[in-house]
Amino acid sequence: MSAASTLLERYQDTRDLTEALAEPLSPEDQTVQSMPDVSPTKWHRAHTSWFFETFLLRPGLPGYRDYHPDFAYLFNSYYEAAGPRYMRSERGCVSRPGCAEVAEYRGHVDAAMQAYISAGLDEPAAALVELGIHHEQQHQELLLMDIKHVLSKSPLHPAYRPRSARPEVAGGGSAVGDRASPADWVKHDGGLVEVGRHGSGFAYDNEGPRHAVHLAPFAVADRLVTCGEWLAFIDAGGYREPSLWLSDGWSKVREADWTAPLYWELTDDGWSVFTLAGRRPVDPAEPVCHISYYEADAFAAWAGARLPTEFEWEAVAGSWPVAGQLEAPDRVHPEPQVGPALLGEAWAWTSSAYLPYPGFRPAPGAVGEYNGKFMVNQQVLRGGSRATPPGHIRSTYRNFFPAAARWPFTGLRLARDI
Amino acid sequence: MSAASTLLERYQDTRDLTEALAEPLSPEDQTVQSMPDVSPTKWHRAHTSWFFETFLLRPGLPGYRDYHPDFAYLFNSYYEAAGPRYMRSERGCVSRPGCAEVAEYRGHVDAAMQAYISAGLDEPAAALVELGIHHEQQHQELLLMDIKHVLSKSPLHPAYRPRSARPEVAGGGSAVGDRASPADWVKHDGGLVEVGRHGSGFAYDNEGPRHAVHLAPFAVADRLVTCGEWLAFIDAGGYREPSLWLSDGWSKVREADWTAPLYWELTDDGWSVFTLAGRRPVDPAEPVCHISYYEADAFAAWAGARLPTEFEWEAVAGSWPVAGQLEAPDRVHPEPQVGPALLGEAWAWTSSAYLPYPGFRPAPGAVGEYNGKFMVNQQVLRGGSRATPPGHIRSTYRNFFPAAARWPFTGLRLARDI
Amino acid sequence: MSAASTLLERYQDTRDLTEALAEPLSPEDQTVQSMPDVSPTKWHRAHTSWFFETFLLRPGLPGYRDYHPDFAYLFNSYYEAAGPRYMRSERGCVSRPGCAEVAEYRGHVDAAMQAYISAGLDEPAAALVELGIHHEQQHQELLLMDIKHVLSKSPLHPAYRPRSARPEVAGGGSAVGDRASPADWVKHDGGLVEVGRHGSGFAYDNEGPRHAVHLAPFAVADRLVTCGEWLAFIDAGGYREPSLWLSDGWSKVREADWTAPLYWELTDDGWSVFTLAGRRPVDPAEPVCHISYYEADAFAAWAGARLPTEFEWEAVAGSWPVAGQLEAPDRVHPEPQVGPALLGEAWAWTSSAYLPYPGFRPAPGAVGEYNGKFMVNQQVLRGGSRATPPGHIRSTYRNFFPAAARWPFTGLRLARDI
Amino acid sequence: MSAASTLLERYQDTRDLTEALAEPLSPEDQTVQSMPDVSPTKWHRAHTSWFFETFLLRPGLPGYRDYHPDFAYLFNSYYEAAGPRYMRSERGCVSRPGCAEVAEYRGHVDAAMQAYISAGLDEPAAALVELGIHHEQQHQELLLMDIKHVLSKSPLHPAYRPRSARPEVAGGGSAVGDRASPADWVKHDGGLVEVGRHGSGFAYDNEGPRHAVHLAPFAVADRLVTCGEWLAFIDAGGYREPSLWLSDGWSKVREADWTAPLYWELTDDGWSVFTLAGRRPVDPAEPVCHISYYEADAFAAWAGARLPTEFEWEAVAGSWPVAGQLEAPDRVHPEPQVGPALLGEAWAWTSSAYLPYPGFRPAPGAVGEYNGKFMVNQQVLRGGSRATPPGHIRSTYRNFFPAAARWPFTGLRLARDI
Repeated sequence: MSAASTLLERYQDTRDLTEALAEPLSPEDQTVQSMPDVSPTKWHRAHTSWFFETFLLRPGLPGYRDYHPDFAYLFNSYYEAAGPRYMRSERGCVSRPGCAEVAEYRGHVDAAMQAYISAGLDEPAAALVELGIHHEQQHQELLLMDIKHVLSKSPLHPAYRPRSARPEVAGGGSAVGDRASPADWVKHDGGLVEVGRHGSGFAYDNEGPRHAVHLAPFAVADRLVTCGEWLAFIDAGGYREPSLWLSDGWSKVREADWTAPLYWELTDDGWSVFTLAGRRPVDPAEPVCHISYYEADAFAAWAGARLPTEFEWEAVAGSWPVAGQLEAPDRVHPEPQVGPALLGEAWAWTSSAYLPYPGFRPAPGAVGEYNGKFMVNQQVLRGGSRATPPGHIRSTYRNFFPAAARWPFTGLRLARDI
Repeated sequence: MSAASTLLERYQDTRDLTEALAEPLSPEDQTVQSMPDVSPTKWHRAHTSWFFETFLLRPGLPGYRDYHPDFAYLFNSYYEAAGPRYMRSERGCVSRPGCAEVAEYRGHVDAAMQAYISAGLDEPAAALVELGIHHEQQHQELLLMDIKHVLSKSPLHPAYRPRSARPEVAGGGSAVGDRASPADWVKHDGGLVEVGRHGSGFAYDNEGPRHAVHLAPFAVADRLVTCGEWLAFIDAGGYREPSLWLSDGWSKVREADWTAPLYWELTDDGWSVFTLAGRRPVDPAEPVCHISYYEADAFAAWAGARLPTEFEWEAVAGSWPVAGQLEAPDRVHPEPQVGPALLGEAWAWTSSAYLPYPGFRPAPGAVGEYNGKFMVNQQVLRGGSRATPPGHIRSTYRNFFPAAARWPFTGLRLARDI
Repeated sequence: MSAASTLLERYQDTRDLTEALAEPLSPEDQTVQSMPDVSPTKWHRAHTSWFFETFLLRPGLPGYRDYHPDFAYLFNSYYEAAGPRYMRSERGCVSRPGCAEVAEYRGHVDAAMQAYISAGLDEPAAALVELGIHHEQQHQELLLMDIKHVLSKSPLHPAYRPRSARPEVAGGGSAVGDRASPADWVKHDGGLVEVGRHGSGFAYDNEGPRHAVHLAPFAVADRLVTCGEWLAFIDAGGYREPSLWLSDGWSKVREADWTAPLYWELTDDGWSVFTLAGRRPVDPAEPVCHISYYEADAFAAWAGARLPTEFEWEAVAGSWPVAGQLEAPDRVHPEPQVGPALLGEAWAWTSSAYLPYPGFRPAPGAVGEYNGKFMVNQQVLRGGSRATPPGHIRSTYRNFFPAAARWPFTGLRLARDI
Repeated sequence: MSAASTLLERYQDTRDLTEALAEPLSPEDQTVQSMPDVSPTKWHRAHTSWFFETFLLRPGLPGYRDYHPDFAYLFNSYYEAAGPRYMRSERGCVSRPGCAEVAEYRGHVDAAMQAYISAGLDEPAAALVELGIHHEQQHQELLLMDIKHVLSKSPLHPAYRPRSARPEVAGGGSAVGDRASPADWVKHDGGLVEVGRHGSGFAYDNEGPRHAVHLAPFAVADRLVTCGEWLAFIDAGGYREPSLWLSDGWSKVREADWTAPLYWELTDDGWSVFTLAGRRPVDPAEPVCHISYYEADAFAAWAGARLPTEFEWEAVAGSWPVAGQLEAPDRVHPEPQVGPALLGEAWAWTSSAYLPYPGFRPAPGAVGEYNGKFMVNQQVLRGGSRATPPGHIRSTYRNFFPAAARWPFTGLRLARDI
């Protein structure tokens, strides 16, 4: 198969997965913005198309006609160099274009992209298409994070889609039983290690340049912290003890009245959790999910441990296998870990602020805004979640969110000095 | 026809009109809350059903089964005595129930109401049904106000529905020509006049008790202020001259950067206005619409006049004919006035604060919250707009909004001492 | 004594009283702005001087030299026509000029005013001086309201000045005993009554024109509501029962967590109240003070009564004697009423919104901003408090504050239909 | 001299310097809190005393009597473990205790501390006294930062104290002339370097543990960026070009309307700057001061360079001489650099987030809150300013502020890869 046809196939597969993820959602679901951080589903579907239109079709496909003159304004997310944009916090105020028109827009862009890719691309253009594909994949996880928040707002506790039966665990091990035991520690002697992008596969600019960092000896837990452990933290008064918390974290706890992870609710029947498959009891064996950096840090302090740096994490995670991903989109909630350390149950907060690697330079032009301009006031997360698309889980991948964010699929993994 | 069948017919006509008003709107349109004051269309459709369910069916129809246990919470607007309620400002965060389920809910309530009404009602129950009908009619105008605000948020300037051709004007008078001339004044000698509800027709509790007020001699303009006059106010720097404004009004002008009525926009082609039939040039002969009390008051000061009190208005408006109403829902924008003083082009701000009439007592129980508890920090409006349903325009009717509100169909009519 | 020397004497007496009120306050006390509504004492001292400088000396005294070129900007309160002004909410950010320089400024203005007044004034100028004197008297009460709020912020509960011994009550009646009995009602037959300024004494523009209003028969309580009655309201759950409250009031109660009047605190020893003489136990016989309109209205609803309109109040209060006023500035807290109905213990909220009287026109120019531009979103208070200067208590006087204000010396008097 | 008498002398010198810094300030000046980040001078004077009272005298001096029972509450800054505290944003609402009482409080604490220290201290107690001294020194710089912001709020532009004549420059070099030339670069080969506290001198806990970091080759400018260079950035449209800015920075620029460093003002006579010696023209040869991290980062991007990491800075700054410090408190504004690279003109923003060093553990108890709990959402600054007390400038010292802070004495020094 030619490079063009491979690329085209990957392009179309990605586009199709986005539509498949939106498929269970009504037009009403796809319209709502439940908080300023959340974007409506139909906005995600349109914005990912805007990316291809703006960075490839308009400049690169002779005779390309914009689908609609106002969409450049309406579906720009944050690219200053691509012109003005509609206010992010008001995305949920726009009912039109509706879902049907967005579908048409996607079709219009897809047809043009097929022509564009099939004609053969030079290397910079192919790299931009590749970036557009990965961009859309990122939005697939955002779409799931966001729609979960939207659905959680309805007192009806609606399910995005029911959960499929759990696949047989090879070897027959009982997941819960295995992992009720304390975590084991993966030890590392420290010293000079190389971190960052390497090899020829795709990686974002923020994963490089590869460089050496010096680490002290340390250990990282071989699994994520579980809901059972989190319940112990709650029962021990963790949310009421200021000495465990960063100052900003404690302010947030009091202001937002946090007493448990996002989506947890305490009823007469105990703690339940809202998932994309509906509300159900908290499973103590599952990794805890939807916690802020502040909560992760406080938990680690309470546990007599700490969070790993992103480099410690990367130094040990290179060989870990990947949990089942978005290929099975009906099981996006983290599941009890069976077997060895895994990537891909829930994103793990690290103690590293999101900063450029030595020698990092953003690309010129609007695509240079992709990552670099967010490098302040954010923490790095590593690993990936069950809602992360295949190909977005690798040991050098750097996800990032502000310390108070709870609506991503965030968990934690402990570390300690040795 | 029996009283029950008359009431039932009126009930069903009202319910049908609500659905007809929602009919041009997509599920996406019906979901959006574009600011805290606005409610989604599907919320209006559900809340008006909740009113019948809560105040009539649940207490009064033996064996009535609530459509859904959570709807009592979800669709309560402001009735404290009816239990807790979902936060008003978050109505746009709820995607489910969607439009289809809301339609089912309406059908469920309608079927029960038919049974309930057909069985024959005592007088208090019939009065409550009547109140529910008028309540739903009020929400018909709110629905139109709200969806206009929603649609205005899209850069696509979508039309709710195209405007039908203007009906022939009897006598063939040219509207614009007639009304480019200055307003005439309807004079009144003042003295003791009776105001407030009278006769046997329906009126809200806040329209009574009927009582005497003493007026000084005064005059009220025989038409609403036009867009042409408003353009002169703008051109004269009205929005930049603090001496014309109430102190709170001037603060608002600077904070919100008001330079024209809501929905007006200045482009290279001059002033345009967004209407439910789309964006079009401002017509100088039309009554100005979508202004706040602050703007109305400042305009009156600039014009060397003042706003009428609600009693002055009522004293002269008793015999005025009513403009075409919501029966023609494709013409809800105010139109150039032809002929004598009219009710029903746009609500006229009065200088009266919304306060109880002497001897007013709210009804006991939750329906007593209908009007009385809003009697502070609001101004009275009189007259009605083209979006006001038939039966909601009468000379004793008291509409009310906070002084900064601009999204209702609000205009002004000048008054002066004589 | 000539008119000029009488006016000069009254001018200087007023100026001296302001300084006497500030005298117990340290420079630190005089600098603080404890909330946006409050102004620092030294600001009051300077602003009242600015009034004379701006409206009389600069335009009217040949050769007058401004004390400081920046003071016109710094000490303008809200007069748009007098030029730009420092933001109100930031008055507490300005440490300089300090108290000593403000005293110098006052001396500079006083010397010039002596020359100006002594030279003889035409009638408009004399009227402006009169207005300036009344303006400064209004600020004397504001100064006391404001400094009370400032001092209440210190955990040390400092006293402004200790309370002097209570004067002998003529006739030896026991105040508390007398007034533990229920209030009596002062009845009025209603009908047409004249309200508003009359005679030749000073009155603000907002007190006129005198005009007729028509009243239904009514009764007003012969005393203010007491703390004892308020305690019963608290004990009955008045602050927790939404059906008693206006909608805006209930929102405020929940948002601000009101459970008692401002300055009340519940300790192990029962309710105490912070006064300008320090903190002491609540006296059940005293009029309740420092309540919002919302609370007054809710109390009246709970008591099966209502608040009087400002015209009802005026119709009965004409002949009432005045309680001891600011002449004894060490007793500014309301005291148990002895004997007949009184003006001047605490301002009484009325159910009337603050609106212009028929025929009211603000004076041209900046002084026209004195009253008229506040005529929206405020409620009228009548009567006066112990902190009101002599000459500011009369039956036509209209004080006004927003419905949520609690830091003025506000109480309530019940009314009912008969 | 004995260890106790040396410590006592250093204690008293520090306490005296605080009072000397407050001496030019009136009671009014010392009371104002001009924004939530700022504390009143008298609060700084009291809080530094509270530190000794809380951590040393109350637990350690037998028979010690608190000066006032409410001060523990009133003057706690952020120590959760030391009990509840007055809200930071309301410090400017408290007029009492006033300056005189605060002086008494300081005397009370000083007398007790003299007794306490003279009696001889064990090593942990001596270390706590040492921490208290350094704590007070930190507040000396905060006091100057804060009072500068307070004084800047007055339109009178008052001076804290006039600037003394500039000391003779050894060698007679012309400062401005020398430094109009471009900066030179101090180069470093990179590799493994040791960073963090070492030796026996005092250092904060956050400066350790000492550890190895690996650096790529780099260069750091031998001087801070000057006002002349900043003017060029302004003239080139730096504040209007989004591509230069971090995303959060650009939001802040637009929201706060930043067009120049804090305290700069453009008048008809060009740019002036408010200093503690009053307002004067911007000197192009001086280091720029009072810029946020966002501005520093944008400037570096515009200059084709970047900010150094805190480790790069530390690796080269070890041998730099220190500029004149707070010993001459009448010259706290940064001055044109003469001669080689210096510490101590203005704090230099680094690109490093404020994070714990490997192996860092906060001390147990309330003093453990000194540094550790702020390790999120802040950037590290290195170097020190002219307002930094002697002994607070060293190459391992880590200062930190949020990225938007501009009221500290902040500047920048460029770096680049080589």
